[in-house]
Amino acid sequence: MARKITSWVDIPKDSDFSIYNLPFGIFSVGNGNKKIGIAIGDQIVDVSAIAELGHFEDLKVDKKTFVTTYLNDFINLGKPVNTAVRLKVQDLLSDKNSSLLDQTQVLVPQSEAHMHLPVRIGDYTDFYSSIEHATNVGKMFRDPENALLPNWKHLPVGYHGRASSIVVSGQNIYRPKGQVLLPDTKAPVFQASSKVDFELEMGFIIGKNSRMGESITTSDAEDYIFGKVLFNDWSARDIQKWEYVPLGPFLGKNFASSISPWIVTLEALEPFKVQGPEQEPEVLPYLTYSGQKNYDIHLEVGIKPKNGEENIVSRSNFKYMYWNMAQQLAHHTCNGCNMKVGDVLASGTISGKEANSYGSMLELAWGGQKPIILSNGEERKFIEDFDTVILRGYCKKDNIRVGFGEVRAQVLPALN
Amino acid sequence: MARKITSWVDIPKDSDFSIYNLPFGIFSVGNGNKKIGIAIGDQIVDVSAIAELGHFEDLKVDKKTFVTTYLNDFINLGKPVNTAVRLKVQDLLSDKNSSLLDQTQVLVPQSEAHMHLPVRIGDYTDFYSSIEHATNVGKMFRDPENALLPNWKHLPVGYHGRASSIVVSGQNIYRPKGQVLLPDTKAPVFQASSKVDFELEMGFIIGKNSRMGESITTSDAEDYIFGKVLFNDWSARDIQKWEYVPLGPFLGKNFASSISPWIVTLEALEPFKVQGPEQEPEVLPYLTYSGQKNYDIHLEVGIKPKNGEENIVSRSNFKYMYWNMAQQLAHHTCNGCNMKVGDVLASGTISGKEANSYGSMLELAWGGQKPIILSNGEERKFIEDFDTVILRGYCKKDNIRVGFGEVRAQVLPALN
Repeated sequence: MARKITSWVDIPKDSDFSIYNLPFGIFSVGNGNKKIGIAIGDQIVDVSAIAELGHFEDLKVDKKTFVTTYLNDFINLGKPVNTAVRLKVQDLLSDKNSSLLDQTQVLVPQSEAHMHLPVRIGDYTDFYSSIEHATNVGKMFRDPENALLPNWKHLPVGYHGRASSIVVSGQNIYRPKGQVLLPDTKAPVFQASSKVDFELEMGFIIGKNSRMGESITTSDAEDYIFGKVLFNDWSARDIQKWEYVPLGPFLGKNFASSISPWIVTLEALEPFKVQGPEQEPEVLPYLTYSGQKNYDIHLEVGIKPKNGEENIVSRSNFKYMYWNMAQQLAHHTCNGCNMKVGDVLASGTISGKEANSYGSMLELAWGGQKPIILSNGEERKFIEDFDTVILRGYCKKDNIRVGFGEVRAQVLPALN
Repeated sequence: MARKITSWVDIPKDSDFSIYNLPFGIFSVGNGNKKIGIAIGDQIVDVSAIAELGHFEDLKVDKKTFVTTYLNDFINLGKPVNTAVRLKVQDLLSDKNSSLLDQTQVLVPQSEAHMHLPVRIGDYTDFYSSIEHATNVGKMFRDPENALLPNWKHLPVGYHGRASSIVVSGQNIYRPKGQVLLPDTKAPVFQASSKVDFELEMGFIIGKNSRMGESITTSDAEDYIFGKVLFNDWSARDIQKWEYVPLGPFLGKNFASSISPWIVTLEALEPFKVQGPEQEPEVLPYLTYSGQKNYDIHLEVGIKPKNGEENIVSRSNFKYMYWNMAQQLAHHTCNGCNMKVGDVLASGTISGKEANSYGSMLELAWGGQKPIILSNGEERKFIEDFDTVILRGYCKKDNIRVGFGEVRAQVLPALN
């Protein structure tokens, strides 16, 4: 494990934002400019203020880089620069360094800041890489005996999603309307969806451009990944069911997805790598990989109804993923499709083996057959108006915690 | 029809870029800046040079707006400003106006300019709105007796595509590699696609942002559309066939799409509106519309093999579309999905009723059963390495022509 570092910043025990984490985000205070921040405990390090003090002069990064609407230009400077900035901040925050002790302007309480979408997202791809999730869905909608389709174990199935409707944690969303085929009818009706669902996912952010025609290998993949976020891929199951044949999900998904504001770097996650599941049948050569490519990230989902406390309805883990990020990226680019800094690639719903580790209401309430009972006595088959859904995630090992904070959004009634 | 306008610019007879057209694009000359241009005959009007002369002072548009990498910021000024700029240029180019006669810097020969992607594309959506195409594909791949799926006549089926790999006419593309299931086998192989296909489509460019939760009506739709382009949605049929169940096309499509450089405004296309096909069964209220929403746009596809002349392999027309753009936009936003300036929404393959009006090789050569014979004697079932595919489109009425030019790309062998 990493050497022990202590900080002069007062970091609450069990904070996701330990000195080992230092994730990047975009924040503003009041009517001020949007700036690059790094989370530490309950505070935000104003990276632009550190730049003003001259601490990045060796790196030859223009101070203006840190006053910006999105992280894209900073990420585009390359992983060596991104990492050097993060390690410099780690050094400045450590007990051994007193340079910032009287520079109170570099720390902003998170409670006083407003967090924004961290990157300008060019393209958003969603995979379907949890074997437990794909099996559950296959059992419910197709054939319980042959739940997985023939291609599933040969390639990480994925599809393109909508980038414009990805919003940051805290932005509430409207219940979508759409065409729905009611039971025992042949023609659809247009109504507000009655089957709004969350999907517990994680996304990764592309950190380096690739060229059209070029393919990224599984061994180079980590060079192209800046970091990870929590991702709630909101879904309307009734709209999706009627529309999705033959070209895939569309309006059942594109009304909103929510991401957490802090991008945890791949470097911060390195100590939490674990071996992934065995892949059988053997994958094609371009999908083979060496070393550990899965990550042990504890995940949980809370639902807070309008009148009641939050209920944890699922505990899952990112380590369950059948297809890892390196394989997803190698597959996505094996045809020469180009990646751009800021693109988001999401995992698909992350379900575990047990019924209380499923990553969607569809699975948790098994298509409505096993409603969830909340602590206030209410039943849930899907998400109701004014429910708030919260996803959280963290890694923990040797008393060191690196977490993602949360992504939270309330579902508001459909607009007229 | 519009009043007759003549120009002091020498415009070749049958030019797509008559004085009634005046489409917008982004051009550069040599190592110069990218600027907004308007096509006229064989020339480009340098709109930034006209701004320098003060001709847009009444419009209060900053001159710097016209020296730009993409049209997005200009489009974002709103349709009244966009239209006023275009009509001012039309006035300046007309015989009745001599202001520019000695200002030779405002015209650049198209042969000396380099054209660029006209907009920064946020999201790209592809529809599937030609009933002839959907029927042909359904006959080939599913049930000839029930070629259309149950949802097809109730909603404009669509899916999300990849924006990063949309390139401008003239940029050549690489044959994609990918997983393919060969006949009579159960496990896929990884190889260069042997079924690369074009798709004859048109795209429209979003001209106005909408908010999340908000829906655009069919009657407001034209306010949100800046203009149209030719669109070649390159496809790899063998990759697509193996991967697309259950979440839709992915690597079979996202290696490249090609668009024409000039965006023809909706205003220039107004005189060519025609009635669309009858829709039976009746559509849901949010998809009803009044007035003419289809456009009579002649389309053609040429294939030029490495050793041989160009062959016109298809002549189709945009008027055949079952679902029109207003319906596509109303459907896309009926769930509150937001639109952003520069988004591209494409029609799907535009096939007519006759076998020589089909919009893809898949249909023209009927899945390989009826190869096309080129003038040099070669057979084509799909697109071969070094073939150049050219799409063209134009409207013509009362001796007035408004055209799109072309979108052209050569398919190069797969990269190693």
